[in-house]
Amino acid sequence: MVVVMKADATDADINGVCAVIEEHGLEPLLMPGNVMAIGIPSEVPTDLREPLQQKLQILPGVSKVTQVSRPFKLASREFHSQDTIVRAGGVEIGGERFVVMAGPCSIESYEQLKSAAEIVKANGATVLRGGAFKPRTSPYSFQGLAIEGLRIMQQVGKEVGITTVSEVMSPDMVETVAEHVDILQIGARSMQNFPLLIEAGKSGKPTLLKRGMWAPIDDFLLAAEYLLAHGNPNVMLCERGVTPLDKSYTRNTLDLAAIPVLKEHSHLPVIVDPSHGTGVAKYVKSMSLAALAAGADGLMVEVHPDPRTALSDAAQALPPDSFAEMMSALREMSAVTGRSMTMGARSSRI
Amino acid sequence: MVVVMKADATDADINGVCAVIEEHGLEPLLMPGNVMAIGIPSEVPTDLREPLQQKLQILPGVSKVTQVSRPFKLASREFHSQDTIVRAGGVEIGGERFVVMAGPCSIESYEQLKSAAEIVKANGATVLRGGAFKPRTSPYSFQGLAIEGLRIMQQVGKEVGITTVSEVMSPDMVETVAEHVDILQIGARSMQNFPLLIEAGKSGKPTLLKRGMWAPIDDFLLAAEYLLAHGNPNVMLCERGVTPLDKSYTRNTLDLAAIPVLKEHSHLPVIVDPSHGTGVAKYVKSMSLAALAAGADGLMVEVHPDPRTALSDAAQALPPDSFAEMMSALREMSAVTGRSMTMGARSSRI
Amino acid sequence: MVVVMKADATDADINGVCAVIEEHGLEPLLMPGNVMAIGIPSEVPTDLREPLQQKLQILPGVSKVTQVSRPFKLASREFHSQDTIVRAGGVEIGGERFVVMAGPCSIESYEQLKSAAEIVKANGATVLRGGAFKPRTSPYSFQGLAIEGLRIMQQVGKEVGITTVSEVMSPDMVETVAEHVDILQIGARSMQNFPLLIEAGKSGKPTLLKRGMWAPIDDFLLAAEYLLAHGNPNVMLCERGVTPLDKSYTRNTLDLAAIPVLKEHSHLPVIVDPSHGTGVAKYVKSMSLAALAAGADGLMVEVHPDPRTALSDAAQALPPDSFAEMMSALREMSAVTGRSMTMGARSSRI
Amino acid sequence: MVVVMKADATDADINGVCAVIEEHGLEPLLMPGNVMAIGIPSEVPTDLREPLQQKLQILPGVSKVTQVSRPFKLASREFHSQDTIVRAGGVEIGGERFVVMAGPCSIESYEQLKSAAEIVKANGATVLRGGAFKPRTSPYSFQGLAIEGLRIMQQVGKEVGITTVSEVMSPDMVETVAEHVDILQIGARSMQNFPLLIEAGKSGKPTLLKRGMWAPIDDFLLAAEYLLAHGNPNVMLCERGVTPLDKSYTRNTLDLAAIPVLKEHSHLPVIVDPSHGTGVAKYVKSMSLAALAAGADGLMVEVHPDPRTALSDAAQALPPDSFAEMMSALREMSAVTGRSMTMGARSSRI
Repeated sequence: MVVVMKADATDADINGVCAVIEEHGLEPLLMPGNVMAIGIPSEVPTDLREPLQQKLQILPGVSKVTQVSRPFKLASREFHSQDTIVRAGGVEIGGERFVVMAGPCSIESYEQLKSAAEIVKANGATVLRGGAFKPRTSPYSFQGLAIEGLRIMQQVGKEVGITTVSEVMSPDMVETVAEHVDILQIGARSMQNFPLLIEAGKSGKPTLLKRGMWAPIDDFLLAAEYLLAHGNPNVMLCERGVTPLDKSYTRNTLDLAAIPVLKEHSHLPVIVDPSHGTGVAKYVKSMSLAALAAGADGLMVEVHPDPRTALSDAAQALPPDSFAEMMSALREMSAVTGRSMTMGARSSRI
Repeated sequence: MVVVMKADATDADINGVCAVIEEHGLEPLLMPGNVMAIGIPSEVPTDLREPLQQKLQILPGVSKVTQVSRPFKLASREFHSQDTIVRAGGVEIGGERFVVMAGPCSIESYEQLKSAAEIVKANGATVLRGGAFKPRTSPYSFQGLAIEGLRIMQQVGKEVGITTVSEVMSPDMVETVAEHVDILQIGARSMQNFPLLIEAGKSGKPTLLKRGMWAPIDDFLLAAEYLLAHGNPNVMLCERGVTPLDKSYTRNTLDLAAIPVLKEHSHLPVIVDPSHGTGVAKYVKSMSLAALAAGADGLMVEVHPDPRTALSDAAQALPPDSFAEMMSALREMSAVTGRSMTMGARSSRI
Repeated sequence: MVVVMKADATDADINGVCAVIEEHGLEPLLMPGNVMAIGIPSEVPTDLREPLQQKLQILPGVSKVTQVSRPFKLASREFHSQDTIVRAGGVEIGGERFVVMAGPCSIESYEQLKSAAEIVKANGATVLRGGAFKPRTSPYSFQGLAIEGLRIMQQVGKEVGITTVSEVMSPDMVETVAEHVDILQIGARSMQNFPLLIEAGKSGKPTLLKRGMWAPIDDFLLAAEYLLAHGNPNVMLCERGVTPLDKSYTRNTLDLAAIPVLKEHSHLPVIVDPSHGTGVAKYVKSMSLAALAAGADGLMVEVHPDPRTALSDAAQALPPDSFAEMMSALREMSAVTGRSMTMGARSSRI
Repeated sequence: MVVVMKADATDADINGVCAVIEEHGLEPLLMPGNVMAIGIPSEVPTDLREPLQQKLQILPGVSKVTQVSRPFKLASREFHSQDTIVRAGGVEIGGERFVVMAGPCSIESYEQLKSAAEIVKANGATVLRGGAFKPRTSPYSFQGLAIEGLRIMQQVGKEVGITTVSEVMSPDMVETVAEHVDILQIGARSMQNFPLLIEAGKSGKPTLLKRGMWAPIDDFLLAAEYLLAHGNPNVMLCERGVTPLDKSYTRNTLDLAAIPVLKEHSHLPVIVDPSHGTGVAKYVKSMSLAALAAGADGLMVEVHPDPRTALSDAAQALPPDSFAEMMSALREMSAVTGRSMTMGARSSRI
């Protein structure tokens, strides 16, 4: 941390800053120059950083207080240099294989999900997605089948033989969702739902954490830090688009540079969701290929047996033929990116 | 809703659009021109709007589907033309009086809150704020005193004789928080925590809903719509700043134009939080005066008996003397805005 | 400037950083701690800051390079502690008086501008605005009367006896515009049109610089720095709204907290444009009052004798009666803000 | 265009709207429903759209006026269905070949540019970039060699046998820059420098237009429309990143979904600049591969013979070995994307 003083700061001001630093058991280092700056060379404990910064900021004579280290720790690559591989229902995420999670936005019925799961698996995807509890902007939109949806998901997962992922929206439902699916999903709107993060952290269940549509990288990794700090090492990060400049053409702006940024600063697997990232089915293929090319560990995409009948997000769901075409293009490209994506690879691995 | 066709759309494409509209019990209206547009003159039921738009968007020959009506209903002024006045613990919010809610970011101890409450009341504020459950970006930051904090709040509220507000973060805590304070607060990070909105809606308890830092006005009013649609008419809206261009000088960008926008389109009271809106104590006074001048119904500000010892948000908390000075300036200005803000007015009203 | 090293940085990495700092004639200060940080205590010359930061960033072992001082100098209050008062055509901007600049978006004809000028003056505004060169997003929109417009502005200014301001869009037109009006306006889209800033700087003419709709405060003040550094001390800053979250209700988000921020860090006058800041005439009055309450030095607003016939920006132009009502409300409020705004004050000052 | 009336609009209000539409030579179409909407079925002429929308918006009883068609025309794929191929100095942009434009941020000397050009060409790039006029946020940063830089560029281009591109910043310099290089570049900060767009349009010179960091797609294509409408069909679009959520990790947010969006709605070639798009050299390779995978027509990247000595943008410039590695990876990937990128292909085409 570095405290920069104002040009007209007095000696008393400087002493005041040093005193506050010392009160917290830290040692100030004077850096005299055209303006005085006061550094804190030793690492400030994570729980002290924000309150100390705030307290220093309001002292007389202080111009600016700057944090120089990253605020997250367990999620950082400095703390854990090797790539984390998350294992869920027989699938490895974050390893050599490029993992595709696919399925409908909402679970609508046993028939719909079963049909989706078969399409998904037949094309080489290894995780089935589908929402039972749906976060919907309007109270008048379809809210999901709730527990009935989870039961359908569990049954279809078993019958088709595919790993499953579904969203959990409140802390009191973590246990229930965890009993029915292989991977918990925490949605973008819940990225800073801290009671939920704490429960999902305690559960230890593999958890896919989506980035909030407004969230800086630091806040995203601090949300992951909640999961890790509460005992869950099985965390996957999912970039799903941030608030766009305007919504005339896409629902969000997919931030693909987050892939190399997250890969550099964190050891956690990085998944990309181009369906929410664009909100438009016809842009999903090119963004999926771009995510693979940029080094993502996998994708989460919306596929519906018949988008024309979908109860939610019809505009961003791929129909079966488009999904097949995209998977084929991904396979071809994976060959030149050093990623494995051959069909049937999963069953052979188990 | 209006569907604009592509220049090269065929008759079959146009018939396809009309068929989907008719399947939903609605009547299409052809608007031939250089390109064909197809309108739906009757009001589309709220629960049909989004799925229908999405389904039409993916039909062959369709260029663009535009919603022409606002997506919220119970929150709209068209539905309820009179200003809503919310009554909580003897205070009226949304009426003639400009209401100031003030207090510390976090409840830290009985002594701290009692002291804050006395300062707050002595300067003419009529609601005491203070957090027991704190949403903190980092898991290493102070997380609040939880239920112990609520008990302190309840006791101090009674002793000092002041209305109280505190944040609730998860649906299973709505009942508990509602038993201890007069007003539930739903924080910016929880604006789209739908299970929480539903519980707060069912509770009927006066609820202050903060705008998410990324939330368009429509999404904000739809979150209020959740509360209203689940049976709670006692909803207050709180503008608290949106994601800024950069954070070099302020934590957020306070969107004061949201005041006249919300006042025009909704009947709900509008509160402004300049403490989070700027994140900097020295900017709070000018933004508070601006909020009053722009027509807000009240303020929520952070005041701490001694910001230098605060456990959270020290940089944005007003010390007692600054708070007194600000309240005095607000009173002077309220005279020319037609708002009542004389001291002691509250007790006389009860 | 502070260079933070990675946890695994070697001694050679640290020496490498020190060597680059020394090559630039500066002295490094080692700050050993859990990670090594290297400070540069003396002030880095302004022209060295960015290239030095960039060079340090790419050295091996470097985690992050942070600037600790503000990048602008002549525009800063540390450099020039007194408020700057700009004098233009008999009007003082930045002094005790709250200055209103008003007039049509575009100059459309002598009759239109004359009529506007009379309305503007009669209601106590002291500067007439009007565009001759119009920056229009579409090439098909009305582009302004160009030099003919400037001639009309000059004539009307003289006849009505009012100070004038008009936009200049390219460096080769600075001289021409400066000959016809009292104040040059540099529009939001031109905030980083550096050749234009340099010419306007050399001209010494009073210049109103609008903030780009995407511009952080530092970039805004650096644009002002261009004007100042090229010899023009007569600079006024104008907040006119930044890119909004969505455009459903307002064209921009008026950042009123920029007023106290700019007042704290710079000595230049601060003007607010609520017409572009909202894009909606009915929100202009409340935002104007808010700007006055927040401490702005003046306003720039669009007024049209008959908005229904306006060739541009009809939706944000105030009709005469609304303008009169707003001016009256501003006068009433100015009394409690310590600002002078009595009618006729200007003529008595000359 | 569709005008939606308020719920309480009167017959007189409705007649007023129809009258204004008819005054403009258009025919209104009544769409009665729960609220009345009034459509304008025929295409509104491009120059009428904005003023008519604004005028209708302020009429009594009007709730909302919505444009239903896109505001650009010559840039649209509906107007020109075939992909445009721009030819400049023997290079085709927008055709089968994936074109790489590379070189230093600034032209610093003959030796530096010559060395850069040789590296660039040897690795299979076919266009040399380099700035002579540099738009710099701070007046204290290196501003470029100006005309001397252009002369160096022209000489190096001839000697090395490579197509050249350089930025022009003001309308009066269009002719000079056009005489020295093969392609004009209009920078992000100049995207709405309309006098510059008009001159570049009149010149007919191949022009690379960069997207403003705040610009919605419609505004970007309208800027291209300026060039096209003033007679220049040789326009290339360049995505270079939009304003980011925060600048902690990247300078901008590269919006790669703009590639399929622009390809769908426009016929113009799309180039991606990952150097400015991220601002960090180590992220350039992955974003370049992503751009190729997503369907871009080419790249513009910063390469410097020795970034440690660069006078500007050192942190985002690739050193020669990284550039060679990236070009090799692009070639390998191009094989599976159906793009040609074999070395030497250009010379054989001439």
